[in-house]
Amino acid sequence: MIKVSVMYPNTPGARFDHEYYRDKHMPMVKARLGAACKFYTVDKGLAGGAPGAPAPYVGMCHIYADSVEAFQKGFGPHANEIMGDITNYTDLSPVMQISEVVVGQ
Amino acid sequence: MIKVSVMYPNTPGARFDHEYYRDKHMPMVKARLGAACKFYTVDKGLAGGAPGAPAPYVGMCHIYADSVEAFQKGFGPHANEIMGDITNYTDLSPVMQISEVVVGQ
Repeated sequence: MIKVSVMYPNTPGARFDHEYYRDKHMPMVKARLGAACKFYTVDKGLAGGAPGAPAPYVGMCHIYADSVEAFQKGFGPHANEIMGDITNYTDLSPVMQISEVVVGQ
Repeated sequence: MIKVSVMYPNTPGARFDHEYYRDKHMPMVKARLGAACKFYTVDKGLAGGAPGAPAPYVGMCHIYADSVEAFQKGFGPHANEIMGDITNYTDLSPVMQISEVVVGQ
């Protein structure tokens, strides 16, 4: 299994609507990806590692798929709609990572 | 529920022993934290978002706990042993983040 992590750097003054992300954007992504998204998780940044340090990322999602190919096949046809929705909740550009799930839940 | 993410930047030339991390370090962390760690996951970086881009992080773990306080109470007494084991699998310094789990599995 692989996961696609989408991470929004915690930039002072930037806009990030956690409610829209949770209630509108991510359910839309799941609906468009269908079975290509096995499940997803959403994080809200609280803090960094050192006392008083800010979280490196204000928000993250992790989309789990059987393979990179399965994800790309599900994402490709809806990429424009999904990417076009980003401005509705943030003015940040996300950092993306594809990982192998070595230990899952 | 909160998660503590420990993320190792993917630095050219750096050392990261994925087998030791999976088979020795993380099971040791779980054993020391006990019930303070509800479960954990481990990721191995495969790629970045753009075609051909490297993964931002070579490896990550995510430790799930009921609260920041529960995690700290479980981690504190074993911090020296856990941190001291890092050099056994990497010469990288991790980036840490504490997040609220907005949507779990």
